[in-house]
Amino acid sequence: MNNQDIYALHPIGIVRSSLKRREDSPRQGFEGAPDAWLEIYQPYLDGMADIRPDMELIVVTWLHLADRDVLKVHPRRKADTALSGVFTTRSPDRPNPIGLHRVRVVAMDDRQRIRVHPIEALDGTPIIDIKPILSGLPDDQ
Amino acid sequence: MNNQDIYALHPIGIVRSSLKRREDSPRQGFEGAPDAWLEIYQPYLDGMADIRPDMELIVVTWLHLADRDVLKVHPRRKADTALSGVFTTRSPDRPNPIGLHRVRVVAMDDRQRIRVHPIEALDGTPIIDIKPILSGLPDDQ
Repeated sequence: MNNQDIYALHPIGIVRSSLKRREDSPRQGFEGAPDAWLEIYQPYLDGMADIRPDMELIVVTWLHLADRDVLKVHPRRKADTALSGVFTTRSPDRPNPIGLHRVRVVAMDDRQRIRVHPIEALDGTPIIDIKPILSGLPDDQ
Repeated sequence: MNNQDIYALHPIGIVRSSLKRREDSPRQGFEGAPDAWLEIYQPYLDGMADIRPDMELIVVTWLHLADRDVLKVHPRRKADTALSGVFTTRSPDRPNPIGLHRVRVVAMDDRQRIRVHPIEALDGTPIIDIKPILSGLPDDQ
């Protein structure tokens, strides 16, 4: 086990959103992000069998437009803040650009199209996992 | 953009834990998991520059022993529960076995070795990202 190992992510779906450009996206979902559709690919639909309206979920995405060579950033894209190590920021630019989005299911066309609120991911962002919120406690992810 | 796209994860480090076998691991960190060391690989150390003791972090791992072909599971490994779609469970067996672990930094040898509490990931689990908790509110991830 060393840093030469590589693991392959296979997206399970894609975000369909009105947010088209990175500069239009809020920093976090709770900062005015819109609702969006999660479109799940057919081979993974059995995994969606128990999704219901009003459920709270963590959507895990791959922030495909990120710069993976970045290790230090100005937090919140402000040039006048000090540079921080990326692992104490939520910048999308980072070695493995994993996005975590806490959302609520607001509607479902069927298991293949799920409307969620709110999510700051851009249109076309790959979805790599979906998890339930296990409790309402602050120590849940 | 379709379900043939593949993305390559490069681990940034590895979990060093007393938990050696999957059957010994608690289901969640808050269910009696031990402390463990996060060992960060040299090329990524600049990203760790602002990690401090007592910080709360989300450690994102790749659950490398998972079965990626699983879409339905018995929750909490109980054979007498109904089968659920994996995306409403926290089972490690899922198409992309991403692990999310909310931890607190309890000690640091240096930026390369970080002691965290608690974490249910097994010894040898690859670390793929680390993020800060943005608030103490329940709607944070």
